[in-house]
Amino acid sequence: MLGAIEAGGTKIICAIADENNVTEIIDEEIIETGDPTRNVEAIIQFFTAHPVQAIGVGSFGPIDVDRHSETYGYITNTPKSGWKNFDFLGALKKLAVPIYWTTDVNAAAFGEMAYGAARQTKNSVYLTVGTGVGGGVILNNEILPGKKHLEIGHISIARRSGDSFEGVCPYHDDCLEGLVSGPAIYKRTGIKGTEIGPEDAVWDTVAYYLAESCVNYALSFAPEVIVLGGGVMHQKQLFPFIRNYYLQVMNEYMSVADLESFIVHSELNNRAGIIGGLALAKKVLGGE
Amino acid sequence: MLGAIEAGGTKIICAIADENNVTEIIDEEIIETGDPTRNVEAIIQFFTAHPVQAIGVGSFGPIDVDRHSETYGYITNTPKSGWKNFDFLGALKKLAVPIYWTTDVNAAAFGEMAYGAARQTKNSVYLTVGTGVGGGVILNNEILPGKKHLEIGHISIARRSGDSFEGVCPYHDDCLEGLVSGPAIYKRTGIKGTEIGPEDAVWDTVAYYLAESCVNYALSFAPEVIVLGGGVMHQKQLFPFIRNYYLQVMNEYMSVADLESFIVHSELNNRAGIIGGLALAKKVLGGE
Repeated sequence: MLGAIEAGGTKIICAIADENNVTEIIDEEIIETGDPTRNVEAIIQFFTAHPVQAIGVGSFGPIDVDRHSETYGYITNTPKSGWKNFDFLGALKKLAVPIYWTTDVNAAAFGEMAYGAARQTKNSVYLTVGTGVGGGVILNNEILPGKKHLEIGHISIARRSGDSFEGVCPYHDDCLEGLVSGPAIYKRTGIKGTEIGPEDAVWDTVAYYLAESCVNYALSFAPEVIVLGGGVMHQKQLFPFIRNYYLQVMNEYMSVADLESFIVHSELNNRAGIIGGLALAKKVLGGE
Repeated sequence: MLGAIEAGGTKIICAIADENNVTEIIDEEIIETGDPTRNVEAIIQFFTAHPVQAIGVGSFGPIDVDRHSETYGYITNTPKSGWKNFDFLGALKKLAVPIYWTTDVNAAAFGEMAYGAARQTKNSVYLTVGTGVGGGVILNNEILPGKKHLEIGHISIARRSGDSFEGVCPYHDDCLEGLVSGPAIYKRTGIKGTEIGPEDAVWDTVAYYLAESCVNYALSFAPEVIVLGGGVMHQKQLFPFIRNYYLQVMNEYMSVADLESFIVHSELNNRAGIIGGLALAKKVLGGE
């Protein structure tokens, strides 16, 4: 049996699945994110009742993913009460099983590669556009390594002519997240994204910036597919606009055989993180 | 003995070095880039006179680096007369030695990692800022893989408030290359970069955009060091400005222990590509 933990800012999901049927979750529990010590107790209780051979953890961040660091496995600089400098991985070691430790978005990227929209590829980018914007990069079927996890949702991109929206990113104002996240859309329109009609001009703006970002990801990672997920991407009308603006911004500099299968919607949707966690548990169990 | 070929738009350098002393070039020849068939003849003549066990090739591009592609080893879409769809690697196979095939900037990035400014690190970004802007990414001491080579010099970045320069990139107008390359600096000022005084305001603008790019590279690749080289970077006064703007744009989102050793000048300078080629020859010889 395999286990996964998807630790988010509001809820923590624990789940189990058989290693021969990773996408079929057999049992799961949702824990409200609160005091980390009590949260970990609940997690350990779940996996004591449902023993597993390995666990994949996708955690909210920022987290320390450098195996050679003294604070490897810690949540680092979060504003979330009690979690700052919390040794999350260390606390989970009580379970005495191998654990794959990464970010929530890296787990989701891995899930889409293993069982979702990027499953035919070795190299992919996954971006989730919701309350925040974040993503993971897969290269040769591995999460892009490095001493720190990536933050591709915060890249700087060119402003569209005529758009003077100030942005909502608390760090960078008008980085990608600052321009297209759910809160950005709300601040642009005064209406929640789910209540904005599909013809509203704001979607055209959002599509433009996402296209610019896809161009930057294509130039930076040469992926075979870019998978877009998260709440904002439920607006399916965005996709043809993103693809059109992608062509316009890229201007034939790097060609793509089939744009429809290059910029695609998430297939695992809000299960990407937890299924990715299970896939990572399988990977760690296989000694890969 | 190891060999290297650095194929640029105006000249092709062939060089040899001992595998135990890769940075010491024993003999080299400079060939003017012209007709590809005659250029290859000259290259083969050089390596016939100076036999080597392996060759690292860093070529101008775009090139096909996908080993599974039918046109692997080709120069693809260049405007350079005769070189479009030229099977460069195939022509070099006459030499009957193992060849590592990559772009000029990837070879330079590898050289800086192996023997230059990034030699203490596993993960680095190399950017050259000259007539064009291009770069390579090293992850775990390997050139960032993928089916296509990267084009990180053409990323879209946010325009600085008040800068309405239209850019010079023939594809993207005001991408990074369009804003800070040598031709961009010339078009901005009407003066060649080498003749512009170090106090000129144009350097402040160039430093700002390079800082924004360094932020994007940091967020996208989590490197341990970013190495800047190329003609424009001979303006050493740029570095303190780039580092200051980097702090301003990043705004503490991702911390860096020591900025002075994070954004650094190339150490191999205009030898980065050829030494990188020799280092890649050593790598291919070692069966790595």
